Amino acid sequence: MEFDLIVRNGIIVNPTDRIVGQDVGIKDGVILCIGSNLQSANPANTRILDCEGAFITPGGIDTHVHLEQWNTPTGDTWVTGTRSAICGGTTTVVAFASQNREHDTVLPIVEEYGALAQGRSYCDYAYHLILTNPTKKIIEEELPILVKEKGITSVKLYMTYDPLKLADRQILDIMVATRKLGVTTMVHAENHDMIAFIIETLLERGMTEPYHHAVSRPSIAEAEATFRAISMAELMDTPILLVHISSQNSARTIRDAQTRLLPIYAETCPQYLWLLSDRLKGDNFEGAKAVCSPPPRDSAEDTDAIWRGIANGTFTTFSSDHAATKFYTEGGKRLGIIDGKPLFTKIPNGLPGLETRLPLLFKGVEEGRITIHDFVRVACSNPAKLYGLSRKGAILPGKDADLCIWYPDGKMEPFQLDNSMLHHDIDYTPYEGMTFKNWPRYTLLRGQVVWDRDNKGLVGNVGDGKYNKRTASTLPGPRSVFVNEWRPPM
Amino acid sequence: MEFDLIVRNGIIVNPTDRIVGQDVGIKDGVILCIGSNLQSANPANTRILDCEGAFITPGGIDTHVHLEQWNTPTGDTWVTGTRSAICGGTTTVVAFASQNREHDTVLPIVEEYGALAQGRSYCDYAYHLILTNPTKKIIEEELPILVKEKGITSVKLYMTYDPLKLADRQILDIMVATRKLGVTTMVHAENHDMIAFIIETLLERGMTEPYHHAVSRPSIAEAEATFRAISMAELMDTPILLVHISSQNSARTIRDAQTRLLPIYAETCPQYLWLLSDRLKGDNFEGAKAVCSPPPRDSAEDTDAIWRGIANGTFTTFSSDHAATKFYTEGGKRLGIIDGKPLFTKIPNGLPGLETRLPLLFKGVEEGRITIHDFVRVACSNPAKLYGLSRKGAILPGKDADLCIWYPDGKMEPFQLDNSMLHHDIDYTPYEGMTFKNWPRYTLLRGQVVWDRDNKGLVGNVGDGKYNKRTASTLPGPRSVFVNEWRPPM
Amino acid sequence: MEFDLIVRNGIIVNPTDRIVGQDVGIKDGVILCIGSNLQSANPANTRILDCEGAFITPGGIDTHVHLEQWNTPTGDTWVTGTRSAICGGTTTVVAFASQNREHDTVLPIVEEYGALAQGRSYCDYAYHLILTNPTKKIIEEELPILVKEKGITSVKLYMTYDPLKLADRQILDIMVATRKLGVTTMVHAENHDMIAFIIETLLERGMTEPYHHAVSRPSIAEAEATFRAISMAELMDTPILLVHISSQNSARTIRDAQTRLLPIYAETCPQYLWLLSDRLKGDNFEGAKAVCSPPPRDSAEDTDAIWRGIANGTFTTFSSDHAATKFYTEGGKRLGIIDGKPLFTKIPNGLPGLETRLPLLFKGVEEGRITIHDFVRVACSNPAKLYGLSRKGAILPGKDADLCIWYPDGKMEPFQLDNSMLHHDIDYTPYEGMTFKNWPRYTLLRGQVVWDRDNKGLVGNVGDGKYNKRTASTLPGPRSVFVNEWRPPM
Amino acid sequence: MEFDLIVRNGIIVNPTDRIVGQDVGIKDGVILCIGSNLQSANPANTRILDCEGAFITPGGIDTHVHLEQWNTPTGDTWVTGTRSAICGGTTTVVAFASQNREHDTVLPIVEEYGALAQGRSYCDYAYHLILTNPTKKIIEEELPILVKEKGITSVKLYMTYDPLKLADRQILDIMVATRKLGVTTMVHAENHDMIAFIIETLLERGMTEPYHHAVSRPSIAEAEATFRAISMAELMDTPILLVHISSQNSARTIRDAQTRLLPIYAETCPQYLWLLSDRLKGDNFEGAKAVCSPPPRDSAEDTDAIWRGIANGTFTTFSSDHAATKFYTEGGKRLGIIDGKPLFTKIPNGLPGLETRLPLLFKGVEEGRITIHDFVRVACSNPAKLYGLSRKGAILPGKDADLCIWYPDGKMEPFQLDNSMLHHDIDYTPYEGMTFKNWPRYTLLRGQVVWDRDNKGLVGNVGDGKYNKRTASTLPGPRSVFVNEWRPPM
Ligand SMILES: [Zn+2]
Ligand SMILES: [Zn+2]
Ligand SMILES: [Zn+2]
Ligand SMILES: [Zn+2]
Ligand SMILES: [Zn+2]
Ligand SMILES: [Zn+2]
Ligand SMILES: [Zn+2]
Ligand SMILES: [Zn+2]
Repeated sequence: MEFDLIVRNGIIVNPTDRIVGQDVGIKDGVILCIGSNLQSANPANTRILDCEGAFITPGGIDTHVHLEQWNTPTGDTWVTGTRSAICGGTTTVVAFASQNREHDTVLPIVEEYGALAQGRSYCDYAYHLILTNPTKKIIEEELPILVKEKGITSVKLYMTYDPLKLADRQILDIMVATRKLGVTTMVHAENHDMIAFIIETLLERGMTEPYHHAVSRPSIAEAEATFRAISMAELMDTPILLVHISSQNSARTIRDAQTRLLPIYAETCPQYLWLLSDRLKGDNFEGAKAVCSPPPRDSAEDTDAIWRGIANGTFTTFSSDHAATKFYTEGGKRLGIIDGKPLFTKIPNGLPGLETRLPLLFKGVEEGRITIHDFVRVACSNPAKLYGLSRKGAILPGKDADLCIWYPDGKMEPFQLDNSMLHHDIDYTPYEGMTFKNWPRYTLLRGQVVWDRDNKGLVGNVGDGKYNKRTASTLPGPRSVFVNEWRPPM
Repeated sequence: MEFDLIVRNGIIVNPTDRIVGQDVGIKDGVILCIGSNLQSANPANTRILDCEGAFITPGGIDTHVHLEQWNTPTGDTWVTGTRSAICGGTTTVVAFASQNREHDTVLPIVEEYGALAQGRSYCDYAYHLILTNPTKKIIEEELPILVKEKGITSVKLYMTYDPLKLADRQILDIMVATRKLGVTTMVHAENHDMIAFIIETLLERGMTEPYHHAVSRPSIAEAEATFRAISMAELMDTPILLVHISSQNSARTIRDAQTRLLPIYAETCPQYLWLLSDRLKGDNFEGAKAVCSPPPRDSAEDTDAIWRGIANGTFTTFSSDHAATKFYTEGGKRLGIIDGKPLFTKIPNGLPGLETRLPLLFKGVEEGRITIHDFVRVACSNPAKLYGLSRKGAILPGKDADLCIWYPDGKMEPFQLDNSMLHHDIDYTPYEGMTFKNWPRYTLLRGQVVWDRDNKGLVGNVGDGKYNKRTASTLPGPRSVFVNEWRPPM
Repeated sequence: MEFDLIVRNGIIVNPTDRIVGQDVGIKDGVILCIGSNLQSANPANTRILDCEGAFITPGGIDTHVHLEQWNTPTGDTWVTGTRSAICGGTTTVVAFASQNREHDTVLPIVEEYGALAQGRSYCDYAYHLILTNPTKKIIEEELPILVKEKGITSVKLYMTYDPLKLADRQILDIMVATRKLGVTTMVHAENHDMIAFIIETLLERGMTEPYHHAVSRPSIAEAEATFRAISMAELMDTPILLVHISSQNSARTIRDAQTRLLPIYAETCPQYLWLLSDRLKGDNFEGAKAVCSPPPRDSAEDTDAIWRGIANGTFTTFSSDHAATKFYTEGGKRLGIIDGKPLFTKIPNGLPGLETRLPLLFKGVEEGRITIHDFVRVACSNPAKLYGLSRKGAILPGKDADLCIWYPDGKMEPFQLDNSMLHHDIDYTPYEGMTFKNWPRYTLLRGQVVWDRDNKGLVGNVGDGKYNKRTASTLPGPRSVFVNEWRPPM
Repeated sequence: MEFDLIVRNGIIVNPTDRIVGQDVGIKDGVILCIGSNLQSANPANTRILDCEGAFITPGGIDTHVHLEQWNTPTGDTWVTGTRSAICGGTTTVVAFASQNREHDTVLPIVEEYGALAQGRSYCDYAYHLILTNPTKKIIEEELPILVKEKGITSVKLYMTYDPLKLADRQILDIMVATRKLGVTTMVHAENHDMIAFIIETLLERGMTEPYHHAVSRPSIAEAEATFRAISMAELMDTPILLVHISSQNSARTIRDAQTRLLPIYAETCPQYLWLLSDRLKGDNFEGAKAVCSPPPRDSAEDTDAIWRGIANGTFTTFSSDHAATKFYTEGGKRLGIIDGKPLFTKIPNGLPGLETRLPLLFKGVEEGRITIHDFVRVACSNPAKLYGLSRKGAILPGKDADLCIWYPDGKMEPFQLDNSMLHHDIDYTPYEGMTFKNWPRYTLLRGQVVWDRDNKGLVGNVGDGKYNKRTASTLPGPRSVFVNEWRPPM
């Protein structure tokens, strides 16, 4: 066999096993074979990469990334965002194409968004579609086209935000189609009216600091909408993914549904593992740096519960929800300062997180909160399965040779994170000052080393990334179990 | 002491005790005293009523009764409805005054509805207010007037039905006021969009039989809305009553909230103890007789759970939801036959149940499903407390002498119910043919015997009933426990 | 009517109602009648007691009291213990007669214990029987005699302590009899082997301070035994009372059983509401003062859960578990000092609590943690029902006139408790220094004022108390619901 | 590369992935490599096995098998038992060496049991140790030897059966050692006293049919002991495996513990998926064929819950609990006929199941109850991990080439099972008459085809099987999370 690259001497990790003492042989960007002591028939043309006993995980897949969307005015571009991705071990991102209310067709939107990434991505990529106005035509005619022709097999629905939110009825309508088509249905679950009501009273009371953003979106709003979304999913026998789950109550509700075998999936993010709402406080508008929705929660009970939810399987995926805006630059987080006074409702929502996602999760492995298998499951393997990235997410023969190679124990000098070390185009990180004992040493995208931390660092090129047409989810889907005699349209 | 009436030789039952060997002395419509071997100072003017060892329960209080509302076209009038009430042991009813969407004031509505009952009721009565368009003015200005001047201390809110339903936001707005005023907030909890969606598909499929009414309102719609209503109540620290709860899942959710001490109350009805959805089937449109919302459920798992919920305390009150329409008469249930074909969406909702409510619950006592104390708690005592009927619901000195005296064991000949035995003006009963081993023998309204089953039967008179101004609930109210730093307007 | 005493102007409280504006007329130690503005036919011989608007609760019933048992070497006698009872508003105590392993008959034991109380009690009293060696003869022949002839209708079983503990099989054997006879079966539920194992390792490690007593009995030992006892009770369809429940997990398990309608009852005690395990720490062996089993728990999570369990109905009764030993006197708590070193296993278990029980619970009413109805339910009413004290526990005509009259708001000067204020013969109280804003003002035992706090204080006499023959429990009993086809012996 | 065998054209299944279009290259009994279109350097010596598109699963691992133990008088020998194993796709069995109470050393026992298998096994094998008398010496001195020298890394403990059962204290003692040594602690959890009590009453009542065996061991006995075992495991921070879990309640308790991340593992068996207790009824003592402990449960609620528990991850492993005795032969099941009358207590416990285990589980895949990944996880992968069979349980390079190759869809003629088709030496199967649509087509043991269903069938040889020294479990172990300040001996 001929190989372009042989990766030796690592511990290959998949969601349930460690493969030790085996080599990964790569040819033409694909894992050609895994075996003992592989020898290339063309050694001169074969690069050997020695892992020195470290973990090899699949390249990270970040399936919740906002790039060049209207609502991140000073955020990363495709160039800077995906650059930071590969420097953090992530080889595939799935970003959003977003319908606006007035659009009565989504096909051109998908094209437009697609054009933004073309030739401008360092890593492989794909798109979800945000639906804000699900007309009959879009649901019945366009979604099938997107699935079959464009390989767009997921939609995101919002239960909150005035310009985005759907009524229950619209969600039910969409579920009919997504069930039929095998489209993964992502739900941003927060009770809109609760939040709107609270915000109004906070403004009346002059409570407008960044911190009041956290106050305005209590976890009960998430828990209610989570329960409601699950109820609709059960009625319709339609799988859903609850995105960016942040709190214990929601996690418990999801776990209960999973115990009953409902096809309910859940995502969480680094900010719900590492940040608390007190991070929204601070002088000089500092708190705005941690303003995102749902907000970080109030106590370690919630962050502990989220870690536990990764370990016990409640969470299917782990994404960054990278929705970054600059802090110091005009037009970024400071939009939330009006006439010199803070107004939390005007602060652009979201945090940068693409590059730090994997290292922050890996810290949980180091601390014994989760296993390395949990890491791979939620950050690489399940994202590929849930979104039909059929060539990705596993270190197995036939898959794309997307790898993240870590440092062996003791090899890397621990360091404190400084935003200047990162490769995004955002002027802060919420994780400034945190100590890291490991970090992706090499990132390989389809067999090419694109990140070599100790030698030149970023060695990939803009445009390396390719668009991935996706298939339907391969996680368990509709069960054909119904709540009574009624059947959803099939 | 002088008495008008002494009731002897009964077992006086309250929610936790049986008082044995004691007499009830009544004067001027009030229980003057309870004691051993009471003697009247004016024996000639004192009637003695011998219970022969039977149970004496407080007169029944039916706090969910629809009389002469627009949506019960051929139903009972105040005259016929309250007549049937006293013949079934019920001495107080609380009916509904209903705002229509276009009304921007409710004060005249309350007057109009009040006029309907005046002089036309056999039993004491009061009104709830149905809010369908809760304007700022109504909430902030009129509700306080209703509470303070009219003694109307409860509102009913709907989460479903096109002409009635409120958005979450409207419910939150109302909760601000009801919390402040101590107004009992009744919630009809069913997810509107789920039901609307199902109905639409059923009609498309030609599934229009009465039975499809049950199919169209699955218990998951109730469970979802129940969870949502409780979430809003928790956020707002506002007590609510979930009316006509019919299913196991909802009962479990309510119980969980009660375990956490949230002031969540629940009501159930006879139809959820005794009827299953197969009763909506049958030739000749028979199923329409059992069409109500929520519908009877599909299996004994649910009816068992409802009985259990009475016994374990989940249910606070037990009401008839008497919302009767005639079956054979033009303009009644047959409105659901269009061009000779059934169309369940046009069947007037609701069942007759005022007269049978207490006997149907008493059967549970006989069968060992609940205790006689549970009976009194949910059918008499808690309804008085929850709705501020401060003179009612308990056999205690100082309370109105409203009593229901049962037969001692073995005294009454068991019989099979035939609609002709009932005193409503409805041409059927869903409980036709059921065997009863006990029934109210005497009903006393403020010291007057108004029903004497073995002698003349109905002996009360139309107009006997008086309007009751109500106080706030005396069950535990707001706790001043909040979900985070935010506080509802106070 | 003639009365010996009329109690006026109080708020009469029972478990579900407040009776306002009514008088209690008492004759020959019994409540003759409750009514408005009672007048005695013999005013000269009728004492009037004016409550000035205060609460009147039934006299407290303390059904878990250890007096003159072998294991309280320097504790209270019947004289001193019951003296403190009435000064704290308690009018009935139920203490223990205890079989030792070697006794193959219990009839004489019951006589011996009975003789100890005779003529030496200030309050009414009864006995439970502790079974440590349940022979066939005792179970089958003697228990029926105790029930029918002696009015002893309750037994206590231990799942721990070497000299007391029963095997599961013995508990099952006893349950056969207690089910048949309607005998209330009290269970001290802690896993013996867990505790024994921990103690052994603590001693090996030299961890012998009083505080290690708390460490040695973790709540998981209670939770396990609670689950096991409930499982046996469910198998046998035999009601049980889990005594002195101290922790959240056990409370949750009990609540779950109650939700399913199993006849599972539970007791808690003041120490699980007010003390934490850090009270077992301190210099000079101070911690020994709080050594009891189960021990106070480690955090407010547990005390909060116990308060919540009273409010939500999990707890049926509230007792002192008064098992007092002196602290400074030779032979008391200091038995746990061996050669100048602490040895927690030798510290006599138990706390004084008879006199402070009601005031400590009343503080929960003041603080809004429970209602006054909860107070009456767990401290007066349910104890009477559960143990068949048919003349006790309710302020109703025909019941013994045992009353506890409190101060009206603002009438009593708040004070800090000092052990010298108490009437027990124990040289400390664990509640030293706590502030009380109310306290029993008058205690009436069968119509006699025995405690008049503001005038002479103790005015009852030793020997006032009478033995109460008890009936079976009147709370719900066996349900004839079984786990499968098997039936326990009936 | 040189290969002895290349397996082509199958779908390689591991617990989370399907590998499609890849070959398995085998050399010297080991999977040398997995890759696309493998070519051997020595094609003449390389056998090619074409799977025709079928599933390739790892060879089954049956970790709960009783062979030649004292309590299976007429059961399979190592020869016949392991013969049936490979014919059913199982390539490794773990059987029991059993200490008797009188043995004060276990080292020779392990040798004796080991000798029984030596040279007499068709498949690879290992041993657990049953501890019935855990002396200090065995725990402290012998267990470490077994682990380090013999590769015996698991013990089984019984909470029931007179000759086997351990007290809680003994279990705690053992847990100290198994925690330290990483020994997998299997627990047979049934409450002994409940069962003994029921049996005694059944015998008194003459209820001695085989069916009464099921009556005598209600699921509550299992649920109680399960909860107790988990409580002890939590206290000691020691992982346990609950073997042969049969009922919904136990499954729920286990799931709750797993949600909290306790290292609690669970096993179930085919009989709890496919048999109900009515199978213990029938003429001619037929019911004895299904007598095992725990018994099959009474309704589909339990079998459904067990299937669900496999799908939702509650169950870690799936074993046969093969404990077979003949039915028609003297000395087998008929020992339960005494003087012509049935006496269930004398019926040897247990069922044959080694050969049918995998096909019965595969039916669940066909019926959509579980996924093929669940199948591999519980029947192959987790058994290897839990018991430290480090060369087994996964189709990965470096692992033993133990494979089970199924039929592609539609290739195999469905058949009804007849005991004569099986290769055990038992004269019946409880699954007689069941229809199978798939069955292992080829079984490979370390690269050798030992079962070729369509060509000669059994082609392996007695003695092919080798003893496996085992390591510690690689599933999550102790967490160093404790219930309070106390620490178990470490
Ligand atoms: Zn979102
Ligand atoms: Zn987002
Ligand atoms: Zn309604
Ligand atoms: Zn209604
Ligand atoms: Zn005790
Ligand atoms: Zn005690
Ligand atoms: Zn076993
Ligand atoms: Zn076994």
